[in-house]
Amino acid sequence: MKAYKDMSRDELLSLKAALEEEYRTAEAKGLSLNMARGKPGASQLALSMPMLDAVNSTSDMKTILGNDTRNYGDLDGIGECRRFMADMMEVKKDNVIVCGNSSLNIMYDTVARSVAFGVNGSTPWCKLDQVKFLCPVPGYDRHFKITEVFGIEMINIPLYEDGPDMDLVEAYVNQDPAVKGIWCVPKYSNPTGISYSDEVVRRFANLKPAAEDFRIYWDDAYCIHHLYEDQQDNILNILEECEKAGHPDMVYIFASTSKISFPGSGISAIATSPANMKYIMDQMAVQTIGHDKINQLRHVRFFKNIDGLKEHMRKHGELLRPKFEAVLDTLEKELTGLEIGTWVRPRGGYFISFDAMPGCAKAIVGKCKDLGVVLTGAGATYPYGKDPKDSNIRIAPSFPTPEEMLEATKIFVLCVKLASIEKLLEE
Amino acid sequence: MKAYKDMSRDELLSLKAALEEEYRTAEAKGLSLNMARGKPGASQLALSMPMLDAVNSTSDMKTILGNDTRNYGDLDGIGECRRFMADMMEVKKDNVIVCGNSSLNIMYDTVARSVAFGVNGSTPWCKLDQVKFLCPVPGYDRHFKITEVFGIEMINIPLYEDGPDMDLVEAYVNQDPAVKGIWCVPKYSNPTGISYSDEVVRRFANLKPAAEDFRIYWDDAYCIHHLYEDQQDNILNILEECEKAGHPDMVYIFASTSKISFPGSGISAIATSPANMKYIMDQMAVQTIGHDKINQLRHVRFFKNIDGLKEHMRKHGELLRPKFEAVLDTLEKELTGLEIGTWVRPRGGYFISFDAMPGCAKAIVGKCKDLGVVLTGAGATYPYGKDPKDSNIRIAPSFPTPEEMLEATKIFVLCVKLASIEKLLEE
Repeated sequence: MKAYKDMSRDELLSLKAALEEEYRTAEAKGLSLNMARGKPGASQLALSMPMLDAVNSTSDMKTILGNDTRNYGDLDGIGECRRFMADMMEVKKDNVIVCGNSSLNIMYDTVARSVAFGVNGSTPWCKLDQVKFLCPVPGYDRHFKITEVFGIEMINIPLYEDGPDMDLVEAYVNQDPAVKGIWCVPKYSNPTGISYSDEVVRRFANLKPAAEDFRIYWDDAYCIHHLYEDQQDNILNILEECEKAGHPDMVYIFASTSKISFPGSGISAIATSPANMKYIMDQMAVQTIGHDKINQLRHVRFFKNIDGLKEHMRKHGELLRPKFEAVLDTLEKELTGLEIGTWVRPRGGYFISFDAMPGCAKAIVGKCKDLGVVLTGAGATYPYGKDPKDSNIRIAPSFPTPEEMLEATKIFVLCVKLASIEKLLEE
Repeated sequence: MKAYKDMSRDELLSLKAALEEEYRTAEAKGLSLNMARGKPGASQLALSMPMLDAVNSTSDMKTILGNDTRNYGDLDGIGECRRFMADMMEVKKDNVIVCGNSSLNIMYDTVARSVAFGVNGSTPWCKLDQVKFLCPVPGYDRHFKITEVFGIEMINIPLYEDGPDMDLVEAYVNQDPAVKGIWCVPKYSNPTGISYSDEVVRRFANLKPAAEDFRIYWDDAYCIHHLYEDQQDNILNILEECEKAGHPDMVYIFASTSKISFPGSGISAIATSPANMKYIMDQMAVQTIGHDKINQLRHVRFFKNIDGLKEHMRKHGELLRPKFEAVLDTLEKELTGLEIGTWVRPRGGYFISFDAMPGCAKAIVGKCKDLGVVLTGAGATYPYGKDPKDSNIRIAPSFPTPEEMLEATKIFVLCVKLASIEKLLEE
């Protein structure tokens, strides 16, 4: 295929005419497809339906230690669920607090707590003139929204295929005491799908923060969300690496079963050092009397252990794989060689990230919308919703069927082509 | 019976000797009873076990409107659950946001939000030199703990049998712009069991706050928690009264099913004006992707409607009544006429509040503890844990069996008598 940039104006104009014809045909179809959010599809939800029988009216509602899950108690989660989440997060049970139905809520609370009360005794951030967070980009819009509402200044850090630009991370963290945190999705990153290399994890663990209250916000949202059995990303254990490096308190790890059991009806957890846990638990004791322990019991009784969980995730992978492949194969078939976009082929997670020619993302999303295909808003993957290059688009293949994904992706590439030609003709 | 204060020193000493004999007998029994927290008893928890079958692997998981409860969406709660909680809280569905498993958590978040972001556009409380809350006393320790951790100054307001001292409330609220809130448990108050009179509710609704961001924190924790079918307290609808008085935004109402279905696995809700709801929802959208909608569905499918709920609460009342009566009858039988303590006979809720002679509460709780009967710590019902008179003791009769409650109360009155005599002999 000839790269668009090497085409003559006439070639572009003639191609544009042909694409516009395709566009009108697509428009006539009146499609309604959504690739906007990482929602599990109906077949995935069906996988977890038997979980709703795992605890019923005849169940023994006591934990292994004999605590009644139906009553108050076990603020840090029931023992067997702490074990279960620890195994999933590859940490020790003693480092885990099991919380409510949303890891996003734990992240929000963790930032909110730091703003109001400080971090393990440091000055509350609300008393400081300036608080900054590093934001590897493209990243997760809901992370950025949390730091935004608290008025925390966000600094873009380029995200490469092996992780964030660590030279830049080190420069900021080790020199600027206003830098209090960094948002990370270390495995099957949202949205690019990349996983951090061992070297990147080690460099994280060996940061020498200028701020004592600097923390790594390690959102391990996709820790066991593999697409393939034989090609799985593995990342180093950041908590262990931080301990080794003499910074046991430097990281909070977050995870949930939102995309394992049911979004909104799963369980979430935070894994961190004993000192951090104590500080969190002291605050949490004021915030709530406890989390939903029956749901914790339901999860453990259903999944049984890490092996049960892995088998369950294998089934999720089987359902997701054709959807990802429908997108990726179409992108490859239709766009390879045209030099109007790049993407990474992820081995897990929930997203595919597409980098269009600079200045084209908004136009592509707009055209898709006009044809009935809803994408995440352009810019959403950047702090303040501002993609400086107007280039990145997040594709969420999980919710539609594989057939719908194929149809939606055909629309997507059509719009990429058209928007790119329009851009080139403008120049 | 002769009042202790009218007894001679010799009479007191001889009574003391007899009571000390009883004390030693009790000590030898090595009891272990807990009247400390408002935990439902095992028979109450059993009432809700069938709820665990209300949603199972064969259930239709869609709401009446067709939304899938297993996936993201419905941030303000599923429609039928908003209706259900609205009926319970005696407000309109459009005024209700259904949240997670804990109304305490909503209250914490509501205060936290005001501290960080302000109230509907007002100055965030963290930017103010002084923020004050009024605290009717005795009251709920966990309310006071929330305001305490945020450094909010708490002002004691006497709570009478018809509600807080409204002259004092009006004086503070209408004149001091630093007064931003008041904690209320309007029905079957924690711990005194009293309910606010219509006049008190109307005076609340007609407050003319000096602070635009003043709100009434109306914790309707025991809204349908009656002990008797034929003697139920009813309170005026504060939201309606505030609307009538031209202050629709002045109140947040909180409630949950923690003591209806399962503590920790129930659902909670906030009811308030449209303007307040919008502000809350905007913040909540950053904090979480949504609450546990399957649990919302489970509740609605089990209780069906307000009639089902009332029938369920009638059963709770039947189980709780003998426990309350064991305490109250023993107090009456053993203490009437002695003038060493006062209490109110509640018609609902979870607590009995006992006012000992000034200076005796700590001693009584200590003696009970030594005999194996755990009570809520003396002072816990006051801000900062400081009961200025060292007089109030909260009794929670729900968890032990009626027989255990009887035994525990006998210990309690023994300790009340002994501590009172010791106090009188000191003087």
